[in-house]
Amino acid sequence: MLTERFLEEQRVARLATVDGRGRPHIVPIVFVYADGVLYTPIDLKPKAAPPERLRRVRNIRSNPQVQVLFDHYDEDWQRLGYVQLRGRAEIIQRGAEYRRAIRLLEEKYQQYDKLPLEGRPVIKISVERTVTWGQLI
Amino acid sequence: MLTERFLEEQRVARLATVDGRGRPHIVPIVFVYADGVLYTPIDLKPKAAPPERLRRVRNIRSNPQVQVLFDHYDEDWQRLGYVQLRGRAEIIQRGAEYRRAIRLLEEKYQQYDKLPLEGRPVIKISVERTVTWGQLI
Repeated sequence: MLTERFLEEQRVARLATVDGRGRPHIVPIVFVYADGVLYTPIDLKPKAAPPERLRRVRNIRSNPQVQVLFDHYDEDWQRLGYVQLRGRAEIIQRGAEYRRAIRLLEEKYQQYDKLPLEGRPVIKISVERTVTWGQLI
Repeated sequence: MLTERFLEEQRVARLATVDGRGRPHIVPIVFVYADGVLYTPIDLKPKAAPPERLRRVRNIRSNPQVQVLFDHYDEDWQRLGYVQLRGRAEIIQRGAEYRRAIRLLEEKYQQYDKLPLEGRPVIKISVERTVTWGQLI
């Protein structure tokens, strides 16, 4: 399916969460997407702060409703396109699903050869709704 | 200043708003940024729906707190960088500031030669806080 292939081919997406005061927060993320679930790691690159202090993690703990945007910009505006995934997020840190997520991330991003993910928390997003607009190319 | 130049050079950014149920919404936007204010139009490309029915517009009417993300992805993760602008949004549709915003948008994006902005609403975001991370190049 076109949308699935578009998502799998993207190298970066944007994750929006909401804090306890109703303010949105967006960050660029690396991710893997498979079968209606998206995984994005809290790896060592974002901040020196402990994972629990990261705003996206605090926001998800208080409000698990998130959205992820995948988009394609082109100066030819006939070729613009995007996909929005709405879903519920949770933090996973162990177990078979966690280990599979880490393995998929390491397969997709060679950069993790030098930045081990083992032991780092992963945000799991269970997709509830997908909106597609424009051209996915 | 480096951050200002980075913002001005970007062709696309991502806008997050929050709906009445606390759910985030993200869309890619074209924009102009000048002196702590960002303008992004409700032009004719997003949807056939009237502007008032667009989710971003409804969200801003009920909660003006927004965030805009500008980021730079690179396979060399030493070169990743982003800027987040937190601010308050409002819709403007007439007056001197509105006309200036339209003019700046038309100057930045030649695509508007064929897609007139005159009369289209503009989202004005007054920036309250800027966070910069990583490399802005």
